[in-house]
Amino acid sequence: MRDFLPPDVRRREYVIAIVEETYRRYGFQPLETPALENIETLTGKYGEEGNKLIFKVLRRGEHESSGETDLALRYDLTVPLARVVAEHRGKLPRFFKRYQIQPVWRADRPARGRFREFYQCDVDAIGSRSMMVETELCSAVADVLQRLGFRDFVIRINHRRLLAGLLDAAGVASDLHGQALVALDKMDKIGAGGVLRELQERGITADGQRVLAAFGAGTTLQSMREFVGDRQEAQGAIAELELIFSLASATSARTHLRFDVTLARGLSYYTGAIMEINVPDLAGSLGGGGRYDGLIGMFCGENIPACGFSLGLERILVVMGERGMFPAGVDAGGADVLVTQFEGEDPAEALRLAGELRQAGLRVEVYPEPDKLGKQFKYASAAAIARVAVLGADERARGVVTIKDMRSGQQQPIPRAELPALRQAVLREASEVEP
Amino acid sequence: MRDFLPPDVRRREYVIAIVEETYRRYGFQPLETPALENIETLTGKYGEEGNKLIFKVLRRGEHESSGETDLALRYDLTVPLARVVAEHRGKLPRFFKRYQIQPVWRADRPARGRFREFYQCDVDAIGSRSMMVETELCSAVADVLQRLGFRDFVIRINHRRLLAGLLDAAGVASDLHGQALVALDKMDKIGAGGVLRELQERGITADGQRVLAAFGAGTTLQSMREFVGDRQEAQGAIAELELIFSLASATSARTHLRFDVTLARGLSYYTGAIMEINVPDLAGSLGGGGRYDGLIGMFCGENIPACGFSLGLERILVVMGERGMFPAGVDAGGADVLVTQFEGEDPAEALRLAGELRQAGLRVEVYPEPDKLGKQFKYASAAAIARVAVLGADERARGVVTIKDMRSGQQQPIPRAELPALRQAVLREASEVEP
Repeated sequence: MRDFLPPDVRRREYVIAIVEETYRRYGFQPLETPALENIETLTGKYGEEGNKLIFKVLRRGEHESSGETDLALRYDLTVPLARVVAEHRGKLPRFFKRYQIQPVWRADRPARGRFREFYQCDVDAIGSRSMMVETELCSAVADVLQRLGFRDFVIRINHRRLLAGLLDAAGVASDLHGQALVALDKMDKIGAGGVLRELQERGITADGQRVLAAFGAGTTLQSMREFVGDRQEAQGAIAELELIFSLASATSARTHLRFDVTLARGLSYYTGAIMEINVPDLAGSLGGGGRYDGLIGMFCGENIPACGFSLGLERILVVMGERGMFPAGVDAGGADVLVTQFEGEDPAEALRLAGELRQAGLRVEVYPEPDKLGKQFKYASAAAIARVAVLGADERARGVVTIKDMRSGQQQPIPRAELPALRQAVLREASEVEP
Repeated sequence: MRDFLPPDVRRREYVIAIVEETYRRYGFQPLETPALENIETLTGKYGEEGNKLIFKVLRRGEHESSGETDLALRYDLTVPLARVVAEHRGKLPRFFKRYQIQPVWRADRPARGRFREFYQCDVDAIGSRSMMVETELCSAVADVLQRLGFRDFVIRINHRRLLAGLLDAAGVASDLHGQALVALDKMDKIGAGGVLRELQERGITADGQRVLAAFGAGTTLQSMREFVGDRQEAQGAIAELELIFSLASATSARTHLRFDVTLARGLSYYTGAIMEINVPDLAGSLGGGGRYDGLIGMFCGENIPACGFSLGLERILVVMGERGMFPAGVDAGGADVLVTQFEGEDPAEALRLAGELRQAGLRVEVYPEPDKLGKQFKYASAAAIARVAVLGADERARGVVTIKDMRSGQQQPIPRAELPALRQAVLREASEVEP
């Protein structure tokens, strides 16, 4: 877990603003849920690995000494969404499209771009089984990444019912499909040998080589059709994927979408298409998602279809930082002007001047103590404040303020009534810095 | 703890944007800290009442079954700031001015405008003992409230060293001052009789009537001067308050600041001026703050002066909601246009049209399934989407899109190339709705 100092926060805010603005253009609405959920809301939703990583909160009050827990920290934004839809169904539109950008917590070992507290940027569409939903989600995340400056990302896509058909064809009993997928999902990390071992350890008696072969069956949807034969569910899954590809050709996801039969996704709640975004220079994914038509029903009994995508803010920031993708303006400092103070002058004059400059829309810091002018200039330089305003007895008598430009070193008396024009100069400079 | 559905989030975002923009004008920089702190960072900082309300998190992994806790949820934003300053001192400017808007958690009984998870909007200035700091903080929060539309708020101000002088003059031993302040702080809730009882229960042997009399000594700083006599610390506190009043006369806090000797503030870390904001129609405060010159030293040994103010987002929202202070634009719906779909048409056409409209900056929802047109119009009405775009075979042949205005009911064919102009119409309507 980390502190975000002002330069970090400015970069985070830059990315979040683009994510929000893009999702709003797709008609998604903002939702926020509490950090703490009842433990039973979270348990049993994330698979065996996930269950272990949930942070649990001690019950307060008289029960504290018993070590009993009743609340847990949000583990993702999908399960809370499902709970919200089940709980507030009557207040929500039939097709509820929401985005949500909040932190989640996992008691995981930290790694590069992986932390115990991290932000997810989720976007989900509730209420329709149409493949328009998957397509629009892929298009929305493609727009986000393109507006951030990414060009080389791939949205890999697969389908849980196709995976089920392949496992079935390879002789894996259906009650062990979940176990097999957990093992197969580790292909990137532990290789074919590791997956074979793990399949055995997880009690899968089917010939491991045959299982692996199913996932090496080919790279096209057409070759999958042949492999799964007359398994109707799997054929239906292939048809859904074909429809998504066809629809995506009319959107910004067009050039980024790739079918990948090895994509499994760890979470247990997916029921249809699954997606994951990768860039060449990051081992993990920038985000992922899929369809989960059964999850909301776990909270309200009624089966309500749903599909969503989650972007990992931290990983996006890591890659953007390493590639130098932030516009210069994002990393510029805080205040536009520093107002100085002298020994023996009335400090209320400095406050009055600061008030006038702020009224004009400028960001103004007042040096809080009387001090040598040289020291105050040095402070402005160190804090990357481009202008220093000096208001001494002489300036007051002449009705001016001396503005020192810390980059050129030039000083200029400006009539007090003309100070609001400084704001235009600052805006002009900011737009010149932008790429 | 509550879910915030889209209309709630929009109101929250409106207030937060004004708070952030105002704090930035005062030269404050954004900071974010993790939700979880080590338990020992939090314990002993909030007084006896506070300690009981900290949410503790179970240690993960093999220790889980022991009920041992090692982390706790952020209780306020001040203690994490003190830890950050102690930890990152070398990376921060000498006068570190930061704002922070994040949730905090307290295992408290919920009440009107009080929740177990709530957002604080904190603004603090580190590194100076100058009363310019207190004054600028009062001015900044006054600006925030004025920009939100508040006119009738009062910023009450008092001083911990003045309170100490008064208690001393009333015969309360200095090691019991903390206990006495906790009791006196409840005057609003339990009245004079209740305070007298609580003073006794807390082991204060001094004559309770004399203690109460000290706080009824007068309402002016001048009368305080006489009461505390030659107690130098208390006289210094009065001088500080007088300076703040004098400086504030040059700022927007001018007409809002009131000295109030009965203000005590519950938290134990304050050392100087203390402030609290009230409006007539809310029992609690909208925010509060003060100087805490000793807190950072608890983390790094070095005494670094600090002063801050915290606004309670939830309470501001409650009062603004009850008074109807939100501009109409804040409560307007999500999407600007709904793109329809027909049975038998290529749904990719709807996606292509949506892409063009989004490119023009419009917020566009696509109806995800083919459906009767009337049903799609109804959906748009219910979701407060002002325009519906219809693109059938006929429209495609003519190179137009039919735009139905859901408020007037009028339909108009618009040449496809002219669709971007819709954005101007939407912006114009939005600005007309603003007050």
